[in-house]
Amino acid sequence: MGRILFTNRVADELNVHIASVEVPMRFLVVDKNSRQNCLSLLEGVEFLPQNIIEIGVGEGSKSLETVHYVWERLEQGGARRNSVVVNLGGGVVTDLGGFAAACFKRGVRCVNIPTTLLSQVDASVGGKTGVNFMGFKNEIGVFSIPELVIIDNSFLATLPYAEVISGYAEMIKHALLCSYESLDKIMQVDLMQVASPDFLQILRESVAVKERVVDEDPTEKGVRKALNLGHTFGHAFESFAIESGLEWYHGHSVAYGLIGAIEMSVLKCGFNRELADTIINYIRTIYPEYPENPTSEELYSLMLHDKKNDGNGVNFTLMHEPGEFMINSYCSKQEILDVLKIMQR
Amino acid sequence: MGRILFTNRVADELNVHIASVEVPMRFLVVDKNSRQNCLSLLEGVEFLPQNIIEIGVGEGSKSLETVHYVWERLEQGGARRNSVVVNLGGGVVTDLGGFAAACFKRGVRCVNIPTTLLSQVDASVGGKTGVNFMGFKNEIGVFSIPELVIIDNSFLATLPYAEVISGYAEMIKHALLCSYESLDKIMQVDLMQVASPDFLQILRESVAVKERVVDEDPTEKGVRKALNLGHTFGHAFESFAIESGLEWYHGHSVAYGLIGAIEMSVLKCGFNRELADTIINYIRTIYPEYPENPTSEELYSLMLHDKKNDGNGVNFTLMHEPGEFMINSYCSKQEILDVLKIMQR
Repeated sequence: MGRILFTNRVADELNVHIASVEVPMRFLVVDKNSRQNCLSLLEGVEFLPQNIIEIGVGEGSKSLETVHYVWERLEQGGARRNSVVVNLGGGVVTDLGGFAAACFKRGVRCVNIPTTLLSQVDASVGGKTGVNFMGFKNEIGVFSIPELVIIDNSFLATLPYAEVISGYAEMIKHALLCSYESLDKIMQVDLMQVASPDFLQILRESVAVKERVVDEDPTEKGVRKALNLGHTFGHAFESFAIESGLEWYHGHSVAYGLIGAIEMSVLKCGFNRELADTIINYIRTIYPEYPENPTSEELYSLMLHDKKNDGNGVNFTLMHEPGEFMINSYCSKQEILDVLKIMQR
Repeated sequence: MGRILFTNRVADELNVHIASVEVPMRFLVVDKNSRQNCLSLLEGVEFLPQNIIEIGVGEGSKSLETVHYVWERLEQGGARRNSVVVNLGGGVVTDLGGFAAACFKRGVRCVNIPTTLLSQVDASVGGKTGVNFMGFKNEIGVFSIPELVIIDNSFLATLPYAEVISGYAEMIKHALLCSYESLDKIMQVDLMQVASPDFLQILRESVAVKERVVDEDPTEKGVRKALNLGHTFGHAFESFAIESGLEWYHGHSVAYGLIGAIEMSVLKCGFNRELADTIINYIRTIYPEYPENPTSEELYSLMLHDKKNDGNGVNFTLMHEPGEFMINSYCSKQEILDVLKIMQR
């Protein structure tokens, strides 16, 4: 298992960790955004300019072609088995750079420094690496835990608000999976202060929820599916946005998906109606309206193509109450259409 | 840890193992040779014709392009996480098919059925998967243990003699790493009878040597390097052959490499001279003469580029006596040139 370090001194920590690696054997993967906004926080950590590998921004760059490019650059830089690859950026950089490191010479050392809230709270734990393939997200990849993940919320100071709330949706999810207490706490967060020491502590607690679940089930055979809470409905909203060419954040879809999962939990698992309304209202005040009006049938058919399904129908994680979840809950088409109708009221 | 099964009823065993996988979810990776010579032994195991994925023969096909092709075919066939990929062939098929399976949806089920002696005795254990990249062998890959490896020496009945002795070099290596007794036994093998029940037993013992070493050190940080015995010199002969466009088998290079390692062990580790001569003569009677006359300097410079080196010089595994080996033995240029001179006498 790798180590996750919460700090506001990322450069110092990285320097200590890779002190034994000669400078020419250090490689840094960034994209244009993280190079511009985040690299300055690594001041004092030495890399050769030719060992800084910049990849394109966004999901479109998360491809086999880009991994190929990273491997070429590692080869040209003379990377060896004891070289270290440091990935500095959002989920695209850490997922892709992690995959590249995991396969180069069957695995070189890897440190992830996630710089967006989404990647800090989600992609930082669990060792999922990968790239998109033939239109499917993260279709090619491996489970590979980086030896160190450094989470420094100073990076969040420059993060656009839309991206802050994108990552925050996963934190709401973690709180729901954890307890009433966590849920209370998360709904009091000041989203204007995400670079504060207080927020670093909340981030640490949120990541701990995911860590506990992943530790129990590293390869997603069982309980790890709990982390799909909100992602079945969310996937449909996200896929619809992609197909419609909308600019729409992953976490915003997850937030909508959480509303769906909560409504379904009220319908099927006796989740408290009043509490459901409180959470749903809270979510609705934070997240922008979904920019289109897909029909329930359209969304349902997108759900059918979710890779979380195994042939037994549409697979949900649902909840009796905060902290009490059930994985592998299959819902009928009618139940799904009913919930979509409630959501769109 | 995966299971390795030694049998002469490969079809029955495979049928039992994949009985629970619906036929459309089964995929078979072959090359032209294994399709022609080996597929008939799987009679009675059902695959859809469109799920049989044929890749090119030989090291030239062991590329990212070919893996890409296998992933496309898996995607087109609707492979899911609980699908099974069966790799039937030599090391190229099992290494490449294993890599493809390990990365598709972050890992689908995988069964290897090695059909050459080299792949049965070597590639079947240890979970090394991978493809060649930018001229380097197995440069991109992962460690991933298939859930089952089936070794059936019936396949060897159709294997050309040159390929039999190619795999056999690894068996000599295993015997050297194991004990005097194993060495005695291996030098009495009848290489005309490799499809016999007796040979299946010898194969089982040989594979067990590798299993023990790999179990101790799955990711090759330490003792697993013992398996590099003969491969430092061997690598130089192999690289020279590739650069000169010679047709020359991996195992034949290993056999020459073993001669080098034994001579070096006499020189530096007190390996018994008489025993060394016995083994070296035995090897020389089996293997053809090396077809070229590279200079010692040429071979030395190829050794410098071996990926087993870590910057401290050329890294050897050497022996005090059969069963007693030392990893990470660094030898000087003069020692290496001396041994190459003795070998070429």
